[in-house]
Amino acid sequence: MAVYTEVSDEDMDAFLAQYDIGHATSLKGIAEGVENSNYVLTTERGTFMLTLYEKRVDPRDLPFFLGLMDHLAARGIPCPTPIHGRDGQALRTLAGRPAAMTTFLQGLWPRRIETAHCGPVGEAMARFHLAADGFALRRPNALSVAGWRPLFDGSKAHAHEVQAGLTDELAGELDLFERDWPRDLPSGVIHADLFQDNVFFLDGKLSGIFDFYFACNDLLAYDVAICLNAWCFEPDKSFNVTKARALLAGYQRVRPLNDAERAALPLLARGAALRFLLTRLYDWLHTPPGAMVKRKDPLEYLARLRFHRGVGSASGYGL
Amino acid sequence: MAVYTEVSDEDMDAFLAQYDIGHATSLKGIAEGVENSNYVLTTERGTFMLTLYEKRVDPRDLPFFLGLMDHLAARGIPCPTPIHGRDGQALRTLAGRPAAMTTFLQGLWPRRIETAHCGPVGEAMARFHLAADGFALRRPNALSVAGWRPLFDGSKAHAHEVQAGLTDELAGELDLFERDWPRDLPSGVIHADLFQDNVFFLDGKLSGIFDFYFACNDLLAYDVAICLNAWCFEPDKSFNVTKARALLAGYQRVRPLNDAERAALPLLARGAALRFLLTRLYDWLHTPPGAMVKRKDPLEYLARLRFHRGVGSASGYGL
Repeated sequence: MAVYTEVSDEDMDAFLAQYDIGHATSLKGIAEGVENSNYVLTTERGTFMLTLYEKRVDPRDLPFFLGLMDHLAARGIPCPTPIHGRDGQALRTLAGRPAAMTTFLQGLWPRRIETAHCGPVGEAMARFHLAADGFALRRPNALSVAGWRPLFDGSKAHAHEVQAGLTDELAGELDLFERDWPRDLPSGVIHADLFQDNVFFLDGKLSGIFDFYFACNDLLAYDVAICLNAWCFEPDKSFNVTKARALLAGYQRVRPLNDAERAALPLLARGAALRFLLTRLYDWLHTPPGAMVKRKDPLEYLARLRFHRGVGSASGYGL
Repeated sequence: MAVYTEVSDEDMDAFLAQYDIGHATSLKGIAEGVENSNYVLTTERGTFMLTLYEKRVDPRDLPFFLGLMDHLAARGIPCPTPIHGRDGQALRTLAGRPAAMTTFLQGLWPRRIETAHCGPVGEAMARFHLAADGFALRRPNALSVAGWRPLFDGSKAHAHEVQAGLTDELAGELDLFERDWPRDLPSGVIHADLFQDNVFFLDGKLSGIFDFYFACNDLLAYDVAICLNAWCFEPDKSFNVTKARALLAGYQRVRPLNDAERAALPLLARGAALRFLLTRLYDWLHTPPGAMVKRKDPLEYLARLRFHRGVGSASGYGL
């Protein structure tokens, strides 16, 4: 659930005066998104999303995120496009926080994932990877292998409270990934968080992807591996190979995986499961039970990790 | 902060199929409103508010609230109007909860109250009182004098933790109101919660009033007294008589208060302060500090109560 910064009438008027989109006729704080304050803003000229970046986002990353959206939108990716002011700037300050507006994207995110969603998601991710090529800015992935041990160190003393034996199991995984993580696969800008609530569908067609606030430079196939975790497991934690096959086929219609990427897929998917397990575990152990943030169960990702550990080759994902 | 019920794609489609407003093109849970799940819903035909009533609202009250909005809108009050389905019904079930749609109201609620807001608010309240006349349903006010003692009883053991001596002070107030509360003043349907976040302005003009989920039958002047508490105190708890004068003048342009109402105003305003003090105190003492709901400071209303105790006649409010 989101944190909200209230915007005064005067601040809003002064902010909008720097754009050519008219005056506010409605402003509603929305409940989706945990990291930032998001508003649906309507003016005489249309509907926009207004985001105030709260403290979990590093302001130094904002030119990367906003520039990426500009870059992708210009290359035909259906995503929010930053609105630029008369001075050409998309990023400015509102109510003491960095703030930006984007276009409003039509569509609804699927509350229940169907196989029919997975092909278009794979395809959209591949188009994203190709379109992002040539984007000038770089942002290393703070949540890749090098970032996992600090998360583990911050959780290991209490991990056994979540599940007996978890500390040892995670330590073994970490050792493996620090040794064997692939380094020579094709890389570029990845979304890194393409979960179901970051993809819109309209009339059964994918209408947009959004929330680029984890985007970074990393292995392209690692993004695919995150997607396998995000889209291809059922609520009972079982793996749905039909969904995986659809997702990978969709991706490969646009950008075929090379042999090294295919071979690495089980390890990458296992690593992706560990990454979400570790962040959820850290939040679980460091968030008081009654806090404003809804904690997500880390064990969902332990089940995924164990599944991937048993996958011998990409054929386990229907390839 | 609001609680959210997620609506599945299938449930949403089935719900909308009962109306003539097209298919959903966007659905955003909004962060305003504590009691219910509120969504901004757009379809090919326009923008609507969708509300799922959560457990703090008694479903038996919903015909009163929705019927009142229909009644008021038909009489020209700028307020959300329930959308009726092909079967004529405005209230049905969605995701296991009572649910209704209304029109989407343009405007922004004032983040900082100015004197210029107060006249229009008084006027809108008086128009509301007159327009509600003739509404067939009745709903007693559960938060009038008879409802205050149970709140007090549920808080008195710990009230001194909030402020020393508070228990005795509140007990004295309660005794007074139970003895002296006026009974013969003009009554009708009152809004009972017309705070700044329930009033929209657009281009400096009042564009709508909403959130009728405390509306009930009670003394009309008590509604005015609530408004004095809601609109005429500064953040430092001082009373702004210029705002009060504007609010009362606005009200009386449409519906002049009679002599008995004027004479009762200090007592009614003091009672209104006690009502919000008691509900805030109860919530303060019964909500864990880290819970999902932001607690409101009860002492803001102790300061108001003490102010009204010192007001000898309606002239203290600029009348």
